[in-house]
Amino acid sequence: MDIEKANTETVSRMMEARPMLVGVGRARDVIPGMRDNLLMHAGPPVTWDRMSGPMRGAVMGALIFEGKAKDEVEAEALAKSGQIDFEPCHHHQSVGPMAGLISPSMMVYVIENKTHGNKAFSGLNEGYGKVLRMGAYAPEVIARLRWMNDVMGPVLADAITSSGGIDIRALLAEALQMGDEGHNRNKAGSLLYLKALAPHIAKVAKDASTASEILRFLGDNALSVLNPVMAACKSMVDAAHGVEGSTIVTVMARNGTDFGIRVSGLGDRWFTAPAGKVKALYFPGFTEADANPDIGDSTITETAGIGGFAMAAAVAIVTFIGGTPKDAMSATLEMYEITYAEHKYFTIPALDFRGTPTGIDIRKVVEKGIAPRVNTGVAHKDPGVGQVGAGLVRPPMAIFEQALVSYAEKYGY
Amino acid sequence: MDIEKANTETVSRMMEARPMLVGVGRARDVIPGMRDNLLMHAGPPVTWDRMSGPMRGAVMGALIFEGKAKDEVEAEALAKSGQIDFEPCHHHQSVGPMAGLISPSMMVYVIENKTHGNKAFSGLNEGYGKVLRMGAYAPEVIARLRWMNDVMGPVLADAITSSGGIDIRALLAEALQMGDEGHNRNKAGSLLYLKALAPHIAKVAKDASTASEILRFLGDNALSVLNPVMAACKSMVDAAHGVEGSTIVTVMARNGTDFGIRVSGLGDRWFTAPAGKVKALYFPGFTEADANPDIGDSTITETAGIGGFAMAAAVAIVTFIGGTPKDAMSATLEMYEITYAEHKYFTIPALDFRGTPTGIDIRKVVEKGIAPRVNTGVAHKDPGVGQVGAGLVRPPMAIFEQALVSYAEKYGY
Repeated sequence: MDIEKANTETVSRMMEARPMLVGVGRARDVIPGMRDNLLMHAGPPVTWDRMSGPMRGAVMGALIFEGKAKDEVEAEALAKSGQIDFEPCHHHQSVGPMAGLISPSMMVYVIENKTHGNKAFSGLNEGYGKVLRMGAYAPEVIARLRWMNDVMGPVLADAITSSGGIDIRALLAEALQMGDEGHNRNKAGSLLYLKALAPHIAKVAKDASTASEILRFLGDNALSVLNPVMAACKSMVDAAHGVEGSTIVTVMARNGTDFGIRVSGLGDRWFTAPAGKVKALYFPGFTEADANPDIGDSTITETAGIGGFAMAAAVAIVTFIGGTPKDAMSATLEMYEITYAEHKYFTIPALDFRGTPTGIDIRKVVEKGIAPRVNTGVAHKDPGVGQVGAGLVRPPMAIFEQALVSYAEKYGY
Repeated sequence: MDIEKANTETVSRMMEARPMLVGVGRARDVIPGMRDNLLMHAGPPVTWDRMSGPMRGAVMGALIFEGKAKDEVEAEALAKSGQIDFEPCHHHQSVGPMAGLISPSMMVYVIENKTHGNKAFSGLNEGYGKVLRMGAYAPEVIARLRWMNDVMGPVLADAITSSGGIDIRALLAEALQMGDEGHNRNKAGSLLYLKALAPHIAKVAKDASTASEILRFLGDNALSVLNPVMAACKSMVDAAHGVEGSTIVTVMARNGTDFGIRVSGLGDRWFTAPAGKVKALYFPGFTEADANPDIGDSTITETAGIGGFAMAAAVAIVTFIGGTPKDAMSATLEMYEITYAEHKYFTIPALDFRGTPTGIDIRKVVEKGIAPRVNTGVAHKDPGVGQVGAGLVRPPMAIFEQALVSYAEKYGY
């Protein structure tokens, strides 16, 4: 077994993947395995009884959105009845931020990796505060989801088709030159996304006021492009998964209860441990006591070499997640210690255009005792509330140790 | 005379000015002193016989655009006939990038400084390459100007009104957190500008295809916001001009022949010397031999504390204008040596959110022998060609020495 060769192949596939945003479609029509009684969620597998507050809240909201329950009482009863299946987004070529709920009727982005041919999917981003992905399910949350699905979704679908597709790797590369890290900070990327679609939205919308409303919604949301970016990263790491002998991490994901990883050379097995608390800046009126443990599939960005790994490109982010500009530089420098490559396309101006640290190597994580750095949002621990802050977290060391033991067992090292 | 008090007042006015983009109107209707036979140009005063190639080219193009000449031969004859007056934009509360031509029929941005009440004006940005401001006047250049004036201008006017105005200081502050320096790099600012106007453009345009065309034109031009930014800076420095005893520079401007400055405490006198050559990265097919000397009013950005002075916010710019990320950091650090203040609203993440160096002090420039650093585009030296590169330049030291001598004469130091 030539580990170096395997890892070189893994990171090369990850970097050479060229994810294009090619469309928007209904989850039940486009996501393989989606079915009427299935809800997909962030992170590794989890049952209703072990679900965290925000995940439960999002499940309840999704059931109300689907018309399967008229309120939270009915939704909770249905969720625990056993009639609803819960499966990770990651089992269906999909990813979702925070609770990451995808239900059958939801409109989702379709990403196609033009290099390797695989697809990936993610929902539409709702914006900030009281949103389903943070566990909120109030009537205004459901109403916004309906507008997004019924009004914005079809226009985005037509606009993306009219645009001929959007090269998300190129968009991300540019956004990293404009102060984004691609996970918690997607200001520039969301504007580049708006710019790419605006002429098409104006053209395909059924009337001027609909076009105007959608342009405002996308423009006011500095996370508009987060979901296409996450799906793009998912398509990169999926292309890099399954390389025999590789020690590179291809999934990091949290469901609000557990943090799980998968490794390219170790098949579909999840290595999990309890999700940690986030070191965060809290929104006014909230404290750490309100915070749910770490949640969401958005760690797919760090897995693909951006997010917390590209902090040095985005020092202005410290005003949102805490820390100093120097910390931001150190974060990226530290991640070179545990990664296998420097990204060919994602570069950091402040580090003389050095490529971002890419391809987490479980050997290096364990040997050096350095866990990956992750930027993240923080959801309230109770269902129905929403976002309370944003900050920094690291996955539990135990999952990398488990993975390394499993590697040794499988490959005999 | 308390120089420190005078300078404190000057930089305070400069920083507290709050320029709002409030409209678009026809130059002859909105710019004080505009008249039928007047062409306004960049830099200090200059006569036709001393005008550089790109300035002459732009004058000829403007006369064709105005319908006063049918081609370059007629235009040149008219320009040298004495029937056309040439005056600096700066004499009319206006600024223009490169040749900076403003003719009576042109649509211009209207900026209002909400703190001090003064207004400032600039034309609409044409984009890159073969453009009037770089001295080009081919039929497609004139056709583009006509479309901008007749189609885009009125829509921008209505969209800006519908938006309630755009706070350009706030936009710039945000753009500096996104890798812009506000002069040669306005990528983020132009996207923020597009974002602010897009919902209104979709609403006010007469049909979907016009809206789409304008959204594409603004989005494809990473300098869309340069002209509003320049007029915003003009309104800041105009508010700071005329403080008795102040040694702070309130105008730096070039006409392609001379580089001129004005000083807050020294009235309307221009101090001038021959404009220098730019140290530039040239577009494919061009070399330094093609380059005109330094030209344009865009040095108003450095005068107001951004542009070359904010290079540390925009290290990715080195791929466009040359140099290394380290040079970019050094440029800003050096400018602290010759400025009076650190900007209250424009901050640089990579320098721990330190304010940009603001308020060039002629005393410090002369004492330390450090001339201001300027980022700039480079025009071809012949009329009719256009842009050939972008780079770095410094004004001639002699103008600061002249100004200091004049200051000593006036104030008896």
